[in-house]
Amino acid sequence: MIAGRARVTIVGAGFGGLTVAQSLARAPVDVTIIDRHNYHYFQPLLYQVATAALSPADIAWPIRGILKRQKNATVLLANVTGIDANARVVHAGSLTVTYDYLVLATGATHSYFGHPEWASVAPGLKQMEDATEIRRKVLLAFEHAELTNDYDEQSRLLTFVVVGGGPTGVEMAGAIAEVAHHALPAEFRRIDPHAARVILIEAGPRLLPAFPEDLSAYARKALEKMGVEVRTQASVTNCNEGGVDLDGERIETGTIIWAAGVVASPAAEWLGVEADRAGRVKVAPDLTVPGRPEIFVIGDTAAVVDGTAGKPVPGIAPAAKQMGRYVADVIAAKVANRPVPGPFHYRHQGDLATIGRKAAVVKLDRFHLKGLVGWWFWGIAHVYFLIGLRNRAAVALNWFWNYLTYQRGARLIIDSAQARKTVQKEQTEKMSPPAEVIQRRQPGDDRP
Amino acid sequence: MIAGRARVTIVGAGFGGLTVAQSLARAPVDVTIIDRHNYHYFQPLLYQVATAALSPADIAWPIRGILKRQKNATVLLANVTGIDANARVVHAGSLTVTYDYLVLATGATHSYFGHPEWASVAPGLKQMEDATEIRRKVLLAFEHAELTNDYDEQSRLLTFVVVGGGPTGVEMAGAIAEVAHHALPAEFRRIDPHAARVILIEAGPRLLPAFPEDLSAYARKALEKMGVEVRTQASVTNCNEGGVDLDGERIETGTIIWAAGVVASPAAEWLGVEADRAGRVKVAPDLTVPGRPEIFVIGDTAAVVDGTAGKPVPGIAPAAKQMGRYVADVIAAKVANRPVPGPFHYRHQGDLATIGRKAAVVKLDRFHLKGLVGWWFWGIAHVYFLIGLRNRAAVALNWFWNYLTYQRGARLIIDSAQARKTVQKEQTEKMSPPAEVIQRRQPGDDRP
Repeated sequence: MIAGRARVTIVGAGFGGLTVAQSLARAPVDVTIIDRHNYHYFQPLLYQVATAALSPADIAWPIRGILKRQKNATVLLANVTGIDANARVVHAGSLTVTYDYLVLATGATHSYFGHPEWASVAPGLKQMEDATEIRRKVLLAFEHAELTNDYDEQSRLLTFVVVGGGPTGVEMAGAIAEVAHHALPAEFRRIDPHAARVILIEAGPRLLPAFPEDLSAYARKALEKMGVEVRTQASVTNCNEGGVDLDGERIETGTIIWAAGVVASPAAEWLGVEADRAGRVKVAPDLTVPGRPEIFVIGDTAAVVDGTAGKPVPGIAPAAKQMGRYVADVIAAKVANRPVPGPFHYRHQGDLATIGRKAAVVKLDRFHLKGLVGWWFWGIAHVYFLIGLRNRAAVALNWFWNYLTYQRGARLIIDSAQARKTVQKEQTEKMSPPAEVIQRRQPGDDRP
Repeated sequence: MIAGRARVTIVGAGFGGLTVAQSLARAPVDVTIIDRHNYHYFQPLLYQVATAALSPADIAWPIRGILKRQKNATVLLANVTGIDANARVVHAGSLTVTYDYLVLATGATHSYFGHPEWASVAPGLKQMEDATEIRRKVLLAFEHAELTNDYDEQSRLLTFVVVGGGPTGVEMAGAIAEVAHHALPAEFRRIDPHAARVILIEAGPRLLPAFPEDLSAYARKALEKMGVEVRTQASVTNCNEGGVDLDGERIETGTIIWAAGVVASPAAEWLGVEADRAGRVKVAPDLTVPGRPEIFVIGDTAAVVDGTAGKPVPGIAPAAKQMGRYVADVIAAKVANRPVPGPFHYRHQGDLATIGRKAAVVKLDRFHLKGLVGWWFWGIAHVYFLIGLRNRAAVALNWFWNYLTYQRGARLIIDSAQARKTVQKEQTEKMSPPAEVIQRRQPGDDRP
């Protein structure tokens, strides 16, 4: 640390926080970036980890590695527990980090709409741990179905319910259908993974509400062609170990995935400031907290209304990056006593969602793409974003090639010792005693 | 299952068990292979996962995927709990699998020489979960060292002790030294990973006792050149959270890795038969359990004395594979009423151990290789073995290229929710309260 240099502390190394740090590389400031993980990850591909197409290391990079050459940046692995805005101090347990400028970019987590008890049976998909947990659950469902002789239990285990018809829900449902109907069938002898049901539940009238209607309709058709049962205008009234209740109807399932709602991380609580219904901090047009010109909140943690359009800025990666660059510009200007840029303005570049292999929907300003063309656009856009994170374009291309050709299978059920014990316990307790286990599916057998 | 066909049940899908299954592909038998994991893994490279050079998915493959096209093979994910040899039944919790022939290939685990309480502080390296746990511990040691201002605690955290000077210990010590001295230094601002100490402890007079003396001496020299402190004729008398005791000497360390001894899995207990000191089943020359001609024990679970040489067969992958092929031949012959092959004969192909990048030792019948030549031999041999597991040679080569060039960093600390809580707790409890954390290492600063 150079005496007298401004100290910029960033909490969260997602798309927003990391962009702030990188954009300040040449500014005469000392940057400290704090995250509770040692890696930055490419959240838009998290569903690929959850469905075993990619490994965690394929979409994540150590934060230290990314900022290795940026000498004014210090990375701390710590879990922030509070902020003392008057003392200008961030607390992480007994660790204390001071700041002149503070940027909060701590993202969002799942919202269960007042039913936190659903969290344990219906994991969401925000963190890498969520993805590896969902992967474990999905793969174990097939394994346990192969072991049981109870047909009702088998069909319960082979039913997968995804709640929420936004991009994450659509991607998860499509990817599980692909795993069940393409990757696994040849590998099981007693069950037929083709028979697996994937049900996508959306409370609203159509999938992908942020997209135009023609693309929503296409997404539904493409999913249905892949064997996904799409239920719109269906609300979940209860979730438990055995299944899901929709107003009146019961779906027996062993695997529920929650993609229905998000709530911001507790930045508003730390600051004791006003939040919107989703827990996001209501920021000023320059992304600062009202009354605290030295504290910025960005990304999914902030409720930002775009000045020009008067519309709320969506919680997507490009928006977080744009906010990050803007905040870095503001801080650099203040430090240099240069005029500060005007209010933050969001440029919407488009919406992307992939449904499955060779099917995606893309909405740009002027045109809508779908099907194979949309999918290639989606793939190229993702490689383009990934290149920025890696040192060598070759690696990203190599990765994309592996993904396109499905040469790699990350279908490993790896548990902590704790989880392993649970599995053993489950096996011992839950498995119905089969009369004779080595009984295979016979040709012509029409069991479910 | 085809009525009347012999049922071959295999427990364990390591090198031995998987070879039995694959070698029976064309035999008129029904094969059931049971493993408590859903993947087969390439154990010789496990240390690379433990030291974050490779991801779990790089060295592991779903068992179902490997046996996908072998229609006479059924894979079950289950944890075997016992065997009823009279009823010819394998129990896995409430699951029951019958057999006509049984092959036990359940491997080995760590032995703490009568000190099971050391297991919790000194993890060994046998399972994938061990590797990811060691990776987590090693990476967190650097992270926690970066956070503390207590220099004693810092140097304790930056001391890594590997117990056991066999191939695994040598590989682990070399790989940790590389991580500390090459991969990490540019990434930390407050500590200097160069200052990390890696101490390799061996009770005997030299490293790699199975190798000739010149190669042992080379290994020691190569490790010392890499900055590893090698202590031979040093015995561990105690291990705990704070460090390791060698007769009289105390080494303060936060990370102990156990590579000193193995003990066979409980197959002998399941069968109620005689075991040697390492828990291995003493098998007949045809690898059957005395008095049970239908039960075979192979790989690390068996104590096999080679008939011709009169020497014990070593616990290495090629030996397990040879036993697997032999047992498949015996079973196929019995089923076909053909004459059964003579006693098992082990062909030793050589010994390999890698020390670090561009340094390995190789002992073949006639020649010893070391240094760069040895390392290339090691690399090519491993690709050769890996090709057998993958469908396409291209994938193995691609993988090898990534490994050679270190383009991939699998340095992710991914925890189960449980482990995450522990880390947070540790951070909160253990961290010494720093006066001012954002203090960097200054040029000329000679702190440890």
